[in-house]
Amino acid sequence: MCTITIWNEFRHEREDEEAAAVYPDGIHEALATVFTGEEAEIEDGIEYDVRTATLDEPDHGLTEDVLDATDVLLWWGHEAHDEVEDEVVDRVQERVLEGMGLLVLHSAHYSKVFKRLLGTSCSLQWREDGGTERLWVVDPGHPIADGLDEFIELPETEMYGEPFDVPEPDRLVFTSWFEGGEVFRSGCCYRRGSGRIFYFRPGHETYPIYENAEVRRVLRNAVAWASPTAGAPRSFGERE
Amino acid sequence: MCTITIWNEFRHEREDEEAAAVYPDGIHEALATVFTGEEAEIEDGIEYDVRTATLDEPDHGLTEDVLDATDVLLWWGHEAHDEVEDEVVDRVQERVLEGMGLLVLHSAHYSKVFKRLLGTSCSLQWREDGGTERLWVVDPGHPIADGLDEFIELPETEMYGEPFDVPEPDRLVFTSWFEGGEVFRSGCCYRRGSGRIFYFRPGHETYPIYENAEVRRVLRNAVAWASPTAGAPRSFGERE
Amino acid sequence: MCTITIWNEFRHEREDEEAAAVYPDGIHEALATVFTGEEAEIEDGIEYDVRTATLDEPDHGLTEDVLDATDVLLWWGHEAHDEVEDEVVDRVQERVLEGMGLLVLHSAHYSKVFKRLLGTSCSLQWREDGGTERLWVVDPGHPIADGLDEFIELPETEMYGEPFDVPEPDRLVFTSWFEGGEVFRSGCCYRRGSGRIFYFRPGHETYPIYENAEVRRVLRNAVAWASPTAGAPRSFGERE
Amino acid sequence: MCTITIWNEFRHEREDEEAAAVYPDGIHEALATVFTGEEAEIEDGIEYDVRTATLDEPDHGLTEDVLDATDVLLWWGHEAHDEVEDEVVDRVQERVLEGMGLLVLHSAHYSKVFKRLLGTSCSLQWREDGGTERLWVVDPGHPIADGLDEFIELPETEMYGEPFDVPEPDRLVFTSWFEGGEVFRSGCCYRRGSGRIFYFRPGHETYPIYENAEVRRVLRNAVAWASPTAGAPRSFGERE
Repeated sequence: MCTITIWNEFRHEREDEEAAAVYPDGIHEALATVFTGEEAEIEDGIEYDVRTATLDEPDHGLTEDVLDATDVLLWWGHEAHDEVEDEVVDRVQERVLEGMGLLVLHSAHYSKVFKRLLGTSCSLQWREDGGTERLWVVDPGHPIADGLDEFIELPETEMYGEPFDVPEPDRLVFTSWFEGGEVFRSGCCYRRGSGRIFYFRPGHETYPIYENAEVRRVLRNAVAWASPTAGAPRSFGERE
Repeated sequence: MCTITIWNEFRHEREDEEAAAVYPDGIHEALATVFTGEEAEIEDGIEYDVRTATLDEPDHGLTEDVLDATDVLLWWGHEAHDEVEDEVVDRVQERVLEGMGLLVLHSAHYSKVFKRLLGTSCSLQWREDGGTERLWVVDPGHPIADGLDEFIELPETEMYGEPFDVPEPDRLVFTSWFEGGEVFRSGCCYRRGSGRIFYFRPGHETYPIYENAEVRRVLRNAVAWASPTAGAPRSFGERE
Repeated sequence: MCTITIWNEFRHEREDEEAAAVYPDGIHEALATVFTGEEAEIEDGIEYDVRTATLDEPDHGLTEDVLDATDVLLWWGHEAHDEVEDEVVDRVQERVLEGMGLLVLHSAHYSKVFKRLLGTSCSLQWREDGGTERLWVVDPGHPIADGLDEFIELPETEMYGEPFDVPEPDRLVFTSWFEGGEVFRSGCCYRRGSGRIFYFRPGHETYPIYENAEVRRVLRNAVAWASPTAGAPRSFGERE
Repeated sequence: MCTITIWNEFRHEREDEEAAAVYPDGIHEALATVFTGEEAEIEDGIEYDVRTATLDEPDHGLTEDVLDATDVLLWWGHEAHDEVEDEVVDRVQERVLEGMGLLVLHSAHYSKVFKRLLGTSCSLQWREDGGTERLWVVDPGHPIADGLDEFIELPETEMYGEPFDVPEPDRLVFTSWFEGGEVFRSGCCYRRGSGRIFYFRPGHETYPIYENAEVRRVLRNAVAWASPTAGAPRSFGERE
C-alpha cells in the first residue's frame, strides 16, 4: 500500500476559464486518476491510497496527521506560492528529511517547499508559445524511465529553458528539447535527509499534459521510486 | 525471483589452512547461505535462485548463458586477479552496462572487473592486524542500510585505509573506523550504463566476517538495490 | 586581490573565560591572521584584503555593500544562530548564488545560512571529550588538499560524529577519525548557484585549533577554491 | 607555464579531400592555434607551451617523457581508435590518475583512452546532416563557461544524440539542442584519480568548428580548469 497526497493550489481552475476547460475538477483530481485509473491497476500491481489537499483548506490540507500518513506528496502550484504558510513548509521539509517522497511538478519549481529543500532560487527561463517538447530519456537505466520509449513528445506546451538554478541533480533522467531552440533538465532526482525528491517539468494548467499516457507512467514510476524505505536510525545530538 | 551468481576465486580455501578452517567449502558457499538460509526467508520475502562460479571452471564459470540469466553477480577475488581472462571481463562489463547488478567484495577492489568499470587503480592502504572495525552508516536513508543500527562492529579484521583510488561514489553508504587510526569508504554505490555496482569492504578470508548477521543483511539489501529494473531503450548508432 | 570577510558570532570569547583564554581578541581576529600572517605571504602569492564582521554590529556587519565587495565569506557561529536576522540570511544566500564563496566552520553547521543553502537539518552527533582527531585526506587530488600530508592530526578536540544530515557532498575532501570510535565527513564541497561552499569541521572555541599550521593551510586553500569565477550569464525570466 | 600536448589521429586530413580542405595542416595544428594565437595572448595571461603528437609517429608520439612533461592532453580521434596501442592507453591512464588533465574532443568519445577511464561503452546516436546546434550553458557558474554568452551556436554540424552511455558527469556544463529534434550532454566534467577530464562535443573533421571563437574560448577555459594542482600524497600499499 502506497499512500499518496496530491497537493494543488487550485486557483487557476476556479478563476480562469481556459484552465477550467482543461481541468474542470482541478489538477489534483486529474492527477488522482493517474493512480486510480485502469492503467495503474494493470501496470503496477501496487495498491494506492490517494488523497488530495488544496491551498484554501485549513492548514492547506496538510496537517501533521495527513503528512505523517503520507508516503509520497505531489505538489502543484503556480500563482500563489507566497500564500503557503511557512509553518506548513517547515512541516513538509521535516517529513521529507524523515523519508517522505516528494514530486514537484511544473511551475512548482518556484514553490516555497522546493526552494527550501534545494537552497537555490530555482529560477529558469520560460515562454508560453504552445510549441512542441520532446523529453529525452538521458538515463535509460533509471527506474523512473521504466517502460518508456526514447523520448516523450508533447505537441503543445509552455517552454522552460536553461539555466535552471538548482543544485546539480543526483541523477538527471530527462532533458527536454523545445521547438523554439531551448533545452531544459526536465527530470531531476535529489535526496534530502532520507527523502527522495523528483522534479518533473510537464504540466501546464492550460494544456492537457496530465492526460498523456507516458507522463502518467512517469508519475507512477516516480512515486514508486520516491516511496520511503526503512533505512537506519537518524540519531543526532550528544553522544556518550 | 532474483537470480544471483556468486563468483569466487576459490584458491585460498583450497591452499591455505587458515582460510580452509574458516571457509571449508569456499567463500562462495558461505555467501550462498546468505540467500538460502532461514534469515533470508524470514526477512526478505524474495525468492532467490543462487548459483556459484569459480576461477578454475571453464570460462571461470561465467559463460554468456550464465551471465544472461544473472540478475546480480557477486565477486570475490584476491590473489589471482590476473588469471581472469579479459574476454570474461568484457562479458561481465557488457552485462553490467545492460543492467546486471554487481557486488564487489573486499579484496575484489583490485579485480579486473572493478577496475575496468571504474577506470581508476582502485588502490588503497592495508594492514593485516586483526583490529576492530566499525562501519558507520553515513547515509541512513539508503535502502542498503535498511534495518541496520548506527554502525556494524567487526571485532577482528584486516584494515583498509584511505586514500581509496576510486571515482567519487554516487552515494556513500558506509565509512569505516579502524582501531589503528584509519578511515575507509566501505560501502560505495556506482552506476555504469544501466547496471548498479556496490563495493562492500568486509570479507577477509581468515576472519569469519560473512557469518556476521548485519553483514549478511547488507548483502541481501545490496542485492535488492542492485537488481535490474526495466528502464528505457539503450539505442545507439546512426539515427535517421 | 581576494577580499575576505570573516564573520564571527563573538560571544563565547567575551562571556566565557575558557574561550577568552584561547581567543582573547575573538575567533575572527585569529582567523584573520591566517591570511595576513607571514605564512600566507610566503606560500600563496595572493594579496588578501581581510575584513571582519560580528553578530552585535548593525546588520551583523553584513550590509549589502560589505557583501557586494566580498569574494569569500567565512562563517563561525555557535550559541546564537537564532539571533541572525532572516534578512541578512537572505542577503548572504543571494550573494552566494551570484558567486560569492562561503566557508562554514565547525559549529556553524547549525547556522541559518548553512541550513538555508543546503535544505537539510545539518544535525550530527557530538561529544566534548578532548580526544584526538585525524582528518584523513580522502581526495588527494582536490586543490583544498594542496600541500598537505596524508592526514592532519589534532591532539585534543570536540568529537563530531555521523550521521551528518547534509546532502551528499559534490566532493568529499576530508573524513575524520576520532579516538572514541566515530567518523565524520569533515570537509564537504558544495555548489549553490554560482557560489562555492566548503564546510570544514575543525574549530572549537576552547581548543586552539586555528593555530594549527595545516588547518590554516586548508583555510587558505579553501578560500582560493571558493573564489568567484567569471562564468556565463545567469539570465532568468520570460524569453522572447 | 602550461604544457599542452595535442594528440590527433591525423588520417582524415591526409586521406579525405573534404577534411583536407578544412584542416590542411591537420586538426592538431588548428587546435594549436587556439593556444598560440593572438586571442590567447590577450585573454588569458597564461604562457602555453604547445606540442603535438599523432597516431603514426613512434609510440603515437606519446612516450613517457612526453606525457611526464604534459599538463593537459587534448585527444582527437575518429576512424582509427583501434590502432592505438594498449600500452600507450595504459600510460595515458596512469598519467591522468596522477593528475594530468585530459580534454576528449568530439568523436574521441569512442577512443580507447576515454572508454578506459570511464568504464562504459561511451556510445551515442549520430546523424551527419549539417544542421544547427546550440550548446546551452547549463552551469553558468563553472569556470569552463567563463566569458561565454547563454549559448554557443554552430550553424552547421553533425548531430550527436542521447542516450550517451557515460557515467553521470560530476558537473554538466553544456547541453546541446539540435535542429533535428535531439539533445546531447556536450560538456561533461569528470575526475579520475587526481586528473580532471572534460569531454567537449564540438569538432567534426569537415566543418570548421575549431575556428569558432567561443569554441576556442571553451578549449582554453577547459585547459585552465584541467591543469594539475599540487594535491596531497597518493600513498598506497601496506601501512605499518
